Amino acid sequence: MFALGIDPGLSRCGYGAVRSEGGQLQVVAYGHLTTPTDRPLSERLSGLWTDLCELLAELSPDVMVVERVLFQVNARTAMSVGQASGLALVAAARIGCPVAEYSPNEVKLAVAGYGAASKQQVQSMVQVLLDLDEQPRPADRADALALAICHLTGCGLRSAVAEARS
Amino acid sequence: MFALGIDPGLSRCGYGAVRSEGGQLQVVAYGHLTTPTDRPLSERLSGLWTDLCELLAELSPDVMVVERVLFQVNARTAMSVGQASGLALVAAARIGCPVAEYSPNEVKLAVAGYGAASKQQVQSMVQVLLDLDEQPRPADRADALALAICHLTGCGLRSAVAEARS
Repeated sequence: MFALGIDPGLSRCGYGAVRSEGGQLQVVAYGHLTTPTDRPLSERLSGLWTDLCELLAELSPDVMVVERVLFQVNARTAMSVGQASGLALVAAARIGCPVAEYSPNEVKLAVAGYGAASKQQVQSMVQVLLDLDEQPRPADRADALALAICHLTGCGLRSAVAEARS
Repeated sequence: MFALGIDPGLSRCGYGAVRSEGGQLQVVAYGHLTTPTDRPLSERLSGLWTDLCELLAELSPDVMVVERVLFQVNARTAMSVGQASGLALVAAARIGCPVAEYSPNEVKLAVAGYGAASKQQVQSMVQVLLDLDEQPRPADRADALALAICHLTGCGLRSAVAEARS
């Protein structure tokens, strides 16, 4: 199973691609896509769209994992986060890539063991779980990797439960 | 000049296409695109994307006009409005259609004469300006038409000023 986590944003959109094989997690790629803040909005979004489509074509993940945001606390950034996430979801749907959604609490629970973990704790745990030489920074990269980990470890657990029951 | 106003939304995305010829405004089409609320988010957004691309291909407007939202008052709907608006902006950019943005106050000023006009007043003025048999309802249709009118009347004024100065 190969999962691509996306932490959407207009100025910076984090991504983290993780593969799970035999219960082992292995990072494939992570980074972020950026758009120039001095360009018109439609041009920035169009550039992000192209980059997202290219990223998906290059990595060809089994699933895209995004954060389920029902209520955006920061109304000031909600619009641009929404614009970026809409593009990511459609870019995935267009190539038949399924999308999984998790709440921020589910992600923190999966990665750091409890739902109220700090950004710093998530970054540390992502580093440990993926055996990285350094902490993934800035936070959007760690968040994207954490989304992928959340999905992959959840899948492992679900398979184990199904196997134990059969 | 042929302008397509878009009032973005996930459940209902309003559109209004208006042509300006010799200072006369003429409605070409208006309505709204909908997505089924019982389907997964990525499927809904993907359907909206397809509909927006088809609408643009069918109408081939000179310009798409959207609302400039710097700060979304309703944080609960900001995400889905953002997702829909992101798709509209990229759909336009992909076919080389320019995008114009106006603040809600600019639109109300252009259509109803003052920036604090009510939704009802905007609907009434859109009906009068476009010589429609009935008021465009619901509000997202009227808002989309108002955006197109705002751009077209502004263009007319700008041309007149440029002519008077030359």
